[in-house]
Amino acid sequence: MFITFEGIEGSGKSSLIAQLKKYFKSSKLEAFFSKEPGGTDLGKEIRKILLNPKYSFDPTSELLLLLADRAEHVQKIIRPNLQKNKLIFCDRYLDSTLAYQGSGRNLDKKIIKKMFKALDFPIPDLTILLDVPVQIGLSRARKRNKLDRFEKEDLNFHENVRRSYLDLAKNDSARIVLFDSSISEEELFKKAVNLIKSRISG
Amino acid sequence: MFITFEGIEGSGKSSLIAQLKKYFKSSKLEAFFSKEPGGTDLGKEIRKILLNPKYSFDPTSELLLLLADRAEHVQKIIRPNLQKNKLIFCDRYLDSTLAYQGSGRNLDKKIIKKMFKALDFPIPDLTILLDVPVQIGLSRARKRNKLDRFEKEDLNFHENVRRSYLDLAKNDSARIVLFDSSISEEELFKKAVNLIKSRISG
Repeated sequence: MFITFEGIEGSGKSSLIAQLKKYFKSSKLEAFFSKEPGGTDLGKEIRKILLNPKYSFDPTSELLLLLADRAEHVQKIIRPNLQKNKLIFCDRYLDSTLAYQGSGRNLDKKIIKKMFKALDFPIPDLTILLDVPVQIGLSRARKRNKLDRFEKEDLNFHENVRRSYLDLAKNDSARIVLFDSSISEEELFKKAVNLIKSRISG
Repeated sequence: MFITFEGIEGSGKSSLIAQLKKYFKSSKLEAFFSKEPGGTDLGKEIRKILLNPKYSFDPTSELLLLLADRAEHVQKIIRPNLQKNKLIFCDRYLDSTLAYQGSGRNLDKKIIKKMFKALDFPIPDLTILLDVPVQIGLSRARKRNKLDRFEKEDLNFHENVRRSYLDLAKNDSARIVLFDSSISEEELFKKAVNLIKSRISG
C-alpha cells in the first residue's frame, strides 16, 4: 500500500508524518517512510538545488528536475518496497507537481499528466491532503526556519497551489482524503491512523 | 546561426572548440560559446551530479536531468542569443542525448525525440560530428584527467554511442557534417572554419 501526504507549506504534514512514523515503528506492519524531492542520494542533491532560494530557474526546468528526482525514487525505493508488500508513506508526490508546477508555475497540467504516464509512475492508493488557509500555513512555515525557494513565493502563488489541491481532491475523492488541519495535532493523528487502518483492512 | 559539436569522449571537440573560440573572438562576427550540460548556473550544478562517478542512477533520471539542464539553457542562453542574431556554438546538444541516453543507456529514441518536440528545443543549423575509433578516443580521454561517469563506461557503451552518432549523421546529412578527427588538429580547424564560413555566407 502506497500512501502519500500533500499540502501547502505549514499545513502540518511534517508533524503528522513524524507521529505516524513513531506509531507504525511499534506496530507489526512493515512501514517505510520517504519523501520527495530527496528520497535517494541523487534526490538529496536535486532537493538542495530545488530549494535553494538563490536560484530562479525556468519552470520547465524545475519540473524536469522534480521528475528526475521522482524517476530515481520510484525505481530505487518505491517499486522495490511495493514489491515487498511494505506500507510506503511518502511526503509529497504526484499531486505536489500538479499543484506547484501546474497551478503555481502555470505549466500545462495535461502535459504534466502525460509525462507521469510516459514515466509510468505508480498511483498512490491513498493520499492525505492537509488543508489550511495560506496565511496560517505560511506564518507557521516562517516561524520554523529560513524560507526555501517555494516558501518564498508570494501569497498568490500559494493560493493557487491550495486551490489546485482542493480541486484535485474534489475530482478524485476516492484516492484523496481531505483533512482540515486546523484541528489539534492529536485529533489529526487519530483521524489519520483510523483512515489508514480502515484502508489496510478494507 | 546555431552550431553544435558532437562526438565520443576524446574525439577532439574541446581542442577544436578552443581554436574556434580564439578565431571567432578576433573576427567581426558576434560569437557565443556554450556547452551542455553546464551552460547555466543551474546547469553547472546538474553537470557536477551527472559527471560524478560515485553515482549510478536510473537511465530515465539521467535523461530528465539532462533535459532540465537543456530547458534552462535554451530558455536563458540559446534563445536570447539566437534572437540577437548571434553565432552560437554549443559543445554537445540534442544528438548527445540520442547517442548517449538512447543508444548508450538503451532508452527509447522515439520517446526522447517526442520530449525534444514537447519541450520545443531549437534544432541546430549545423552540427559538426567528430568521429574517432573508440579505442583511440578513450585512450586520449584517459590521459587527460580522472575519468567522469560517462568516460568510465565500458567499450561496448562507447561503441554504441559512436554507432548511434554515425547513424544520426547518415540520416540527417544536411545538418550533421562528419569529420574524421584522426587528421591533424590544424587541418581539422581549417576544415571547420571553411565549413562554418560557407554556411554563414550561404
